[in-house]
Order: sequence, then structure tokens, then C-alpha cells
Amino acid sequence: MQSVTNSPKVALHEPSFTGNELAYVKECIDTGWVSSVGGYVDRFERELAEYTGARHAVVVSNGTSGLQVALQLVGVKPGEEVLIPALSFVATANAVSHCGAYPHFVDSEATTLGLDVAALSDYLDRVAESVGDVCINKRTGRRIAAVVPMHTFGHPVDMPALVELAARHRIALVEDAAESLGSWIGDRHTGRFGRCGMLSFNGNKIVTTGGGGAIITDDDALAKRAKHLTTTAKVPHAWEFFHDEVAYNYRMPNLNAALGCAQLERLGGFLGSKRKLTELYAQAFSDLPQVRLFAERQGTRANYWLQTLMLAPEVADQRDAILKATNAAGQMTRPVWNLLTTLPMYMACESMPTPVAQDLARRIINLPSSPHLTGAL
Amino acid sequence: MQSVTNSPKVALHEPSFTGNELAYVKECIDTGWVSSVGGYVDRFERELAEYTGARHAVVVSNGTSGLQVALQLVGVKPGEEVLIPALSFVATANAVSHCGAYPHFVDSEATTLGLDVAALSDYLDRVAESVGDVCINKRTGRRIAAVVPMHTFGHPVDMPALVELAARHRIALVEDAAESLGSWIGDRHTGRFGRCGMLSFNGNKIVTTGGGGAIITDDDALAKRAKHLTTTAKVPHAWEFFHDEVAYNYRMPNLNAALGCAQLERLGGFLGSKRKLTELYAQAFSDLPQVRLFAERQGTRANYWLQTLMLAPEVADQRDAILKATNAAGQMTRPVWNLLTTLPMYMACESMPTPVAQDLARRIINLPSSPHLTGAL
Repeated sequence: MQSVTNSPKVALHEPSFTGNELAYVKECIDTGWVSSVGGYVDRFERELAEYTGARHAVVVSNGTSGLQVALQLVGVKPGEEVLIPALSFVATANAVSHCGAYPHFVDSEATTLGLDVAALSDYLDRVAESVGDVCINKRTGRRIAAVVPMHTFGHPVDMPALVELAARHRIALVEDAAESLGSWIGDRHTGRFGRCGMLSFNGNKIVTTGGGGAIITDDDALAKRAKHLTTTAKVPHAWEFFHDEVAYNYRMPNLNAALGCAQLERLGGFLGSKRKLTELYAQAFSDLPQVRLFAERQGTRANYWLQTLMLAPEVADQRDAILKATNAAGQMTRPVWNLLTTLPMYMACESMPTPVAQDLARRIINLPSSPHLTGAL
Repeated sequence: MQSVTNSPKVALHEPSFTGNELAYVKECIDTGWVSSVGGYVDRFERELAEYTGARHAVVVSNGTSGLQVALQLVGVKPGEEVLIPALSFVATANAVSHCGAYPHFVDSEATTLGLDVAALSDYLDRVAESVGDVCINKRTGRRIAAVVPMHTFGHPVDMPALVELAARHRIALVEDAAESLGSWIGDRHTGRFGRCGMLSFNGNKIVTTGGGGAIITDDDALAKRAKHLTTTAKVPHAWEFFHDEVAYNYRMPNLNAALGCAQLERLGGFLGSKRKLTELYAQAFSDLPQVRLFAERQGTRANYWLQTLMLAPEVADQRDAILKATNAAGQMTRPVWNLLTTLPMYMACESMPTPVAQDLARRIINLPSSPHLTGAL
């Protein structure tokens, strides 16, 4: 691994700020526009929409808050259920909880690392029924209001199949595209298959604003409501303070949006570098038949946000030994998240059987993935 | 007014970034530490604690999220009631709603612009009863779980009296000190009278981080829980992703904390400048017997965050004409917030009679208050 990273000590993912980052942030400070209104907020929204092809992008304080608001906007109500992958970062489940709803866990597909659409289809045929326009979990009696695929490490879920499944069951589709800015299925960007999608710009993401996120959508009304709900629902007036609904302060400060604008200019370079890094790792590990670099599926283009080493089933029991040895050697590696079904606060939630997710969780090791590692940046 | 502001066009409140703001932010970008872990987050927390005298400060994404978490930590549960002033920014009520609880509105005191402790005491004697250790609203049957005074424009509420009242009724006390960094009662900083207090560093505040807030408290366990709950409840481990409760991503990025550290160094200067500005306005308006500059109460030291002109009752009907004329002349003035009891989503909530808050809302005009207006910065 060190033959690729070229360094005795290397992090899992570090951002690169050698473009216009400082210049844009300096401009915010020089002009005094650091807070939630400002030119960079508008510009970042416009450029995110342009890049992804969405009609609208609404920037927010982070991915969790973005997903919470997105779920509320597609109609998820307290006491309802939302289908999410068992194999995801805890934020996906927390966003559901923040709506007062319950996560309902879905198994993964080994070829995408994401939600298994065929298995979910079979499962819904067994556990769900249509009552009028509504999909009901027969066991709990609760409405299944939405499904949230998450594009793991930037590898796209099989969205065309999921779009069809969600429509058939009349379940709203919202994409957790926190990890997949720059990932495409054909010529359509991830996050653009559902009613809306969420992006994240946390410090470890391919493009960062320090902390931040965005909701992307083609739905004019939804975008307008997203902006209103995330900015305290203030009704425009020259001086009056009138707010017309319970709402959030989930704004992204202009200072952070400035960083985002500079980072977005460099996304092409980051993507190229990460693709190159995958090749280098694949080569470096090509002599070891027990491991392989996880590669993008045909018809998709992954952003390769985190490099993913898959252990063969017969060496899965060595995962922790490898993690220990590599971290001790200064090469920061990580396992995938503990399955959400194993966390104390989500253990009692509804779940389909998750044999594939359990298997994947034992076999995934993420490798150092910073874009600067190829030396190209 | 223009004789004080010395400018044909002036905002209500603009930040000043002529100190170390750029240097500290540049360091974040140069070192790559822009996100939720970093030296400036720790330093800002340490320096906020030192300045306010609190044992702990936990920085968060903004004041609303800080207040929501603070309320949860003192035990506010869904379906309960929280006493808050009718005269406040909508965030105070939204934070209560985000806990699933109901705001219950309290009248204001003309001498502090904050919650009227004596009137609240009389009111609670009429509407509340103690059932065991719990204060119950006799009309709704709901528990009154907490009371949240807000220090309007930096003028402290009568906290010693409120501490006594809250203890007598066994109601938790949490301070909304969003506007009062630098405001003291005797030698105790606002936000330090309740179990915990919340500060805000929004763009218009006396010290800004772009967007941000903090929870301050002397309670070790509460501080630890506040940090845990606002950082996804991740349990520390070399590589494992284990989270032990439903939690939030309410972190303040290091980039924003860096701005905060630089701003905090200049707080003394801002406070002096704002005090001077009050004197200049008071002088400029001294010939007009129908108005007066709102001044700090004896025994307290206000930060004079927003300069406040009080119209005499007989000219209150001219408020809108004054707002219109001053804004048209480029001098940005503002009324106080619409009473929370008049907003559609809070209209049906419980409220004591609010004659004083209604009267104040008709008579308050905030004047341009930027610290640089005195020319001293």
C-alpha cells in the first residue's frame, strides 16, 4: 500500500486547497459577507445545479439536515417508516429519526454495495400491502412513506430499477447522494432519479465546505419549500419579521459556500486523480488473489470517493488484523460502518434479512483516498 | 441619526474583520483543517468558557440547534410545554418545537425587555400545580418542563428572581443568551444562571462565526452529553463506527471556529464601541422628548448589541412612518420581531396575557449598531 501512498503516514481522506479556496474566503472576509446571505451561496447553488443537471440546488448546513428536510418535503410524517440500507453511515438513519419516523432496513447488493432492489421487491411483496394510494407495512400497520438509497463510496445503486419499484408501491424516492458527487448512471447524475437528492460537503468528502450539504431537485415547488424551511420560513418584507411555519436554521454560511465554489472548480481534477488512484491500488494488489479493488459497474461512472478493498470470503476473518497492522504502520485504513441494525437505538427497528450487508461489512477495507496521493494535484 | 452614523447608507449591523480573522482562516486552509475536528474548535470552546466563566462551552452549528439540544438535555420531552417570552426571535420557539414540545408564552417587562418574572410568578400560581416533583399546566394537563428567558438586544433579564421562581416550581432553567455575549449581571455572565445557556454567532451578532452557536454550562455531565449528542454520538475507537444513540450533526466547522477565535479577541473593543454608540445616539436624540435610548438596568452591564430607540406611547403610531422614512434615507432601522403569539404556527399555543410585550412591540425601533460606526475600529 505504501508503494501507492508514497508516505510513511497517510490519512484516510484529506482535502486539497491549492486552488481559489483562499482567494474566495478572503473575499468574504474583506467584504464582510461571511454569513447566510451572500454571493457565494447563490453561486454555489447555481453551479451545483449546473454540474448535476438538476433544475435547483438548495445549500444547507450539512447532509443530515438536508436529508431530514428532503424527507419532510416528500411527505414523511412522524410514526411512518422509511426504507434505508442497513449498510450506511448513521446519518441516514438519524435523518429519518429527526422526522419522527422509523428506519426500516434493507439488504445490500454485492455488485453495487447499495440497496438490493430485487431483494427489496420480493420483500415488499411479502410484507407490504397497498391501501388506496398508500403502502402499508402489514406487520406494524405503519405507512412506508419513502425509500432512501445511498450510493456507497460513490458507487451508484441500480436506480432505474428502484425508480420503477418505488412507483409501483407508491413510495417516495429520495437519494442519499452524500458520497456520490461526480458519480453518474449513464448521463444522469446520482441524486437526480428520486423526487430529490441530498449531497454532502463534510470535510472528508470529494468536495468540502468544512461542513455543508445540498438538496438537488427538478421540482420547482419542492426547491422553493426547501429554501423556505431551511431559512426559518421568513416571509420577505422590507423590515417586518414574519415567519409562517415551524422551520429550521439550516443555512450554509457564505464563508463555507466560498470554499465550496473553489472546490467545485477542481472537481474534475479530483475525479481524475481518484480514478488513477484506483488503478494504482489495483495494480499494487494484483498479486494477491484474496483481495480486489472494488470497481464501478458497467453503465455507471463512480467518483471513487473512497478506495475500497474487498477481502475474499476466506480471508474475511483477517480484516481486523489488517486494519491493526496498516494503522500501526501509519496507513490509515477503515472498515465500513457497523451495520445500522446492530446499533442500540436502531436494533428494534423493522428489517428485512441482511445476509449480503453482513457479509460485505466483514470484507470491506477502505484505503487512503486523498486526491493528492497520485501526485497529480 | 445620520449625524451619528456619518454615512448616507448604513446597515443595521455589519461585522468587522480587521483583526486576525483572515490569518486564522488562512491557517485552516493552509493546513487542511477546515472541518469539524481541529485546533480552533477546541480553542474557541476553551476561550468562550474562560470569557464567560463557565466550566464548559460546546460549540454547535447555530443558536437554534444549541437551544434544541440544551432543552433535550435538561429533560424536555415531546408533548411538554416550555415557557418562553412572546417577544423573541422565532428561533426560540422553533427550538422548542424541534423537541416536539409546545411553547407557552410569557409577557415582558418594560425595564428589561425580557421575561417578566413577577407577572410569570402570579400567572403560574393561577394556572400551574405541583404534582410530585413536576409542574403541571392545569388547563392542558401537560408538564411545564422548562423556562427560557431571552436577553433582548443584550439587556439581561432579572435572573436572580427567575432562578428562585424556577426552583420553586421545579422547572428547568435554560438561557437563550443568543444576543448577550458580553452582558453581565453583577460579575456573572448571562447564560450562567440556568442549568445551561446558549450563545449565537450568527452573522449579525456581536461576534460572528458566519453561522454558529455554543452551549455553556458548569455541569460536567451535561457538557459531555452536549458534545456527544451534537457530534453523531460516535463512541471513540481507533477505527470502528459505533454510535450509541439517535443524535445530530450540529458540529461547528474549524473554519468557522477560526473566525470566532479572531472575533473573540476583539470583543472588548466591540463592547466599548457599542457603549460609545449608545451615548452618541442618546445625545443626538436628547432634544426629542418623545423618544429615548434604552439603557442598561442598574446592577447589569449590557453589551448594547442592537441600539434601541423607545418611542413614547403617544407617538407609537408613528413607528412605521419612522421606519419608512429612515430606510428610504439609507439608514437601516428595524422594528422588533412580530410577537410569537401572532405567528400562524404559534397562535394556538398557551399564553399568559401579554399587554407589555404588545406595547413594547409598537414602540421599539432598532438603530444602525455596527461597532465600526463610532470610527474607533
